[in-house]
Amino acid sequence: MSDSKKTSYFSSGFTLGILGGGQLGKMLLYETRKWDIATKVMDPSKDAPCRLACNEFVQGNLMDFDTVYHFGKNVDVLTIEIENVNIDALEALEKEGVEVYPTPRELRLIQNKITQKLFYVDHGIPTAPFSRFAYTSEIDDSLDHGGIQLPFVWKSAQFGYDGQGVKIVRNRSDLRDLPNVECLTETLIPFKTELAVIVARSRNGSVVHYPVVEMEFHPEANQVEYVLCPARISDKVAKKAIETALRVSEALEHVGLLAVEMFQTREDEVLVNEVAPRPHNSGHYSIEASFTNQFEQHLRCILGLPLGNTDSKVAGVMVNLVGAEGHEGEVYYENIEKILSLRGVTPHIYGKSVTRPFRKMGHVTIVNEDMEEARKIAGEVKRTINVISKMKV
Amino acid sequence: MSDSKKTSYFSSGFTLGILGGGQLGKMLLYETRKWDIATKVMDPSKDAPCRLACNEFVQGNLMDFDTVYHFGKNVDVLTIEIENVNIDALEALEKEGVEVYPTPRELRLIQNKITQKLFYVDHGIPTAPFSRFAYTSEIDDSLDHGGIQLPFVWKSAQFGYDGQGVKIVRNRSDLRDLPNVECLTETLIPFKTELAVIVARSRNGSVVHYPVVEMEFHPEANQVEYVLCPARISDKVAKKAIETALRVSEALEHVGLLAVEMFQTREDEVLVNEVAPRPHNSGHYSIEASFTNQFEQHLRCILGLPLGNTDSKVAGVMVNLVGAEGHEGEVYYENIEKILSLRGVTPHIYGKSVTRPFRKMGHVTIVNEDMEEARKIAGEVKRTINVISKMKV
Repeated sequence: MSDSKKTSYFSSGFTLGILGGGQLGKMLLYETRKWDIATKVMDPSKDAPCRLACNEFVQGNLMDFDTVYHFGKNVDVLTIEIENVNIDALEALEKEGVEVYPTPRELRLIQNKITQKLFYVDHGIPTAPFSRFAYTSEIDDSLDHGGIQLPFVWKSAQFGYDGQGVKIVRNRSDLRDLPNVECLTETLIPFKTELAVIVARSRNGSVVHYPVVEMEFHPEANQVEYVLCPARISDKVAKKAIETALRVSEALEHVGLLAVEMFQTREDEVLVNEVAPRPHNSGHYSIEASFTNQFEQHLRCILGLPLGNTDSKVAGVMVNLVGAEGHEGEVYYENIEKILSLRGVTPHIYGKSVTRPFRKMGHVTIVNEDMEEARKIAGEVKRTINVISKMKV
Repeated sequence: MSDSKKTSYFSSGFTLGILGGGQLGKMLLYETRKWDIATKVMDPSKDAPCRLACNEFVQGNLMDFDTVYHFGKNVDVLTIEIENVNIDALEALEKEGVEVYPTPRELRLIQNKITQKLFYVDHGIPTAPFSRFAYTSEIDDSLDHGGIQLPFVWKSAQFGYDGQGVKIVRNRSDLRDLPNVECLTETLIPFKTELAVIVARSRNGSVVHYPVVEMEFHPEANQVEYVLCPARISDKVAKKAIETALRVSEALEHVGLLAVEMFQTREDEVLVNEVAPRPHNSGHYSIEASFTNQFEQHLRCILGLPLGNTDSKVAGVMVNLVGAEGHEGEVYYENIEKILSLRGVTPHIYGKSVTRPFRKMGHVTIVNEDMEEARKIAGEVKRTINVISKMKV
């Protein structure tokens, strides 16, 4: 790419394509607007959060070869905000000179959780022991013969977005509810906490990483409830988590962000759980807390710009806003005014008109000079705001 | 307004109207998108920065009664990002139940610089001595009779946006270039520095203020070159500036933001220069540096939400990006990649396709734990980036 083309990110004649128009894309669009970078977004839903703020919005099936191919032909750089896209089309586009980041090779490896697991094993990256199955129905046999033991974590090989496709299996009857698909089972690791490190790697090869964050999960919904940055862990464990994340990054040679999710075991070992090749829920705190937020950083990576400083200005805690149980219908953010009166509280509303139990509807960031205070306020936020529907009887 | 209507800011059925679609409106739209608040924007230019990210964009003349009136009839709350709008239309809308903030009364008072000056005098608010003239041509007479002395500051009564409408007159020939309009002349105050305080006042009457910022002006263009927060002044002067700004705020009973620009004289007196009833260039640093940025704060005010914390997370310096002299045509941001490699540097590109000498094309914020370091990097930013047109011969 010539220099004159490179600088045109900031003027006319350059278009960034984004596959997926959900909340991650929406937050990426704040940054493209900030830098006046022209964007074209495709999403299957005409009401996708990205329908505004892009220069062109296209409704289309992200898994369809022709749709993705034709969309990508008219952009200069193509990125994604969701992994489940037609990778064959991305490969064809890449061959024809479109810059696709993350690369199709990287996406193919990550999209299938079995391939991802084998990649960790091949590169000596610590991860929980696992077994692979062509169909969920084959697991019974393996239990019969002692190949695996209850309880375990079941993961579908494909389409594991947003807590779907992952299930803790405690007894055989839990297996009955699962789809009969290619899958893996993973030893249930008793862990102290979950950690994540976002690594940013530019297309020119330079690498920076964000601080280690700590994730607290909702015990039932298997969704993150709080993300804390920095994680409240020892320097030794933090160092280990960062080294592990950088090893994954180096082995993968990704371009763009890579969110590396890890378990901190009871023995203070660090095991890689899974990775996401894009801006990630565990990095949302960075909008308010970091010198360079993850969305701007992703742009810097895929456009080959110098990477930004990943330090935090203040401590940050993020609370996911998910639909309350028992509520389905037009969304209502009960008590949102109340949380706005708390110090350092910023709600982000994704703009989905309908709420469903555990659906990600937004998030709230709490920043403070002091982490303990931020976490305390985050608890208050969590107890105060409710994502409900008034249509409930 | 009923509670159910109030909470609908965050769901469907509520629309915020914005008169003016320039850079201030564009930055306000980041916040409406963050909270998924539906917006309708009107601007005379079809290529206005706000054409994206609003729910509906209307091209129209902001000074035309019918155009403004019909635009405003279909929104719930109406705000402005530029003072020069048809106030008669706003008054009609207000009478018919549209919530208009800033109020037409407040806008009328501010829109005319003579009325604004008389307001300060009436309320005992310190300001530079001045004389008023129905026409610029009458100034000669006053000079002849010793009514005023050279040099002085000439200000047109109307339309004083963005450095236009203000001129330092050092000799009689300077007067020849000025439009023959209603105007005032102001004693040229030898000042140490210019300060500004942004006061936020909610429609429910609660008030908060941002820290005092310090402004460094370009010596010729009469445009701000650097804004520093916090100002490098004594606590005593800071206290005086804040008290003065709060007095203006209280007297004006504004709703929304009020940016109060002041001179710090050689004797450490504080004189009010002028005010702006909206998000202001002197508050752009707040996007990166403050707990609550000025645009979110403006929304909080006009929607009657609790006001946000105005503390800074880090020191901030803002550099205006204005078109270089001798360049007119399609804009090119020379060396923007270079400034992106400096620590804590965030460029904002407003998205105007054509540059002209001294036209505001964007700004850059530099944040740092240490103000001296931030100011140093800001100087480097200023020396490095150039807003030019390649079409120059």
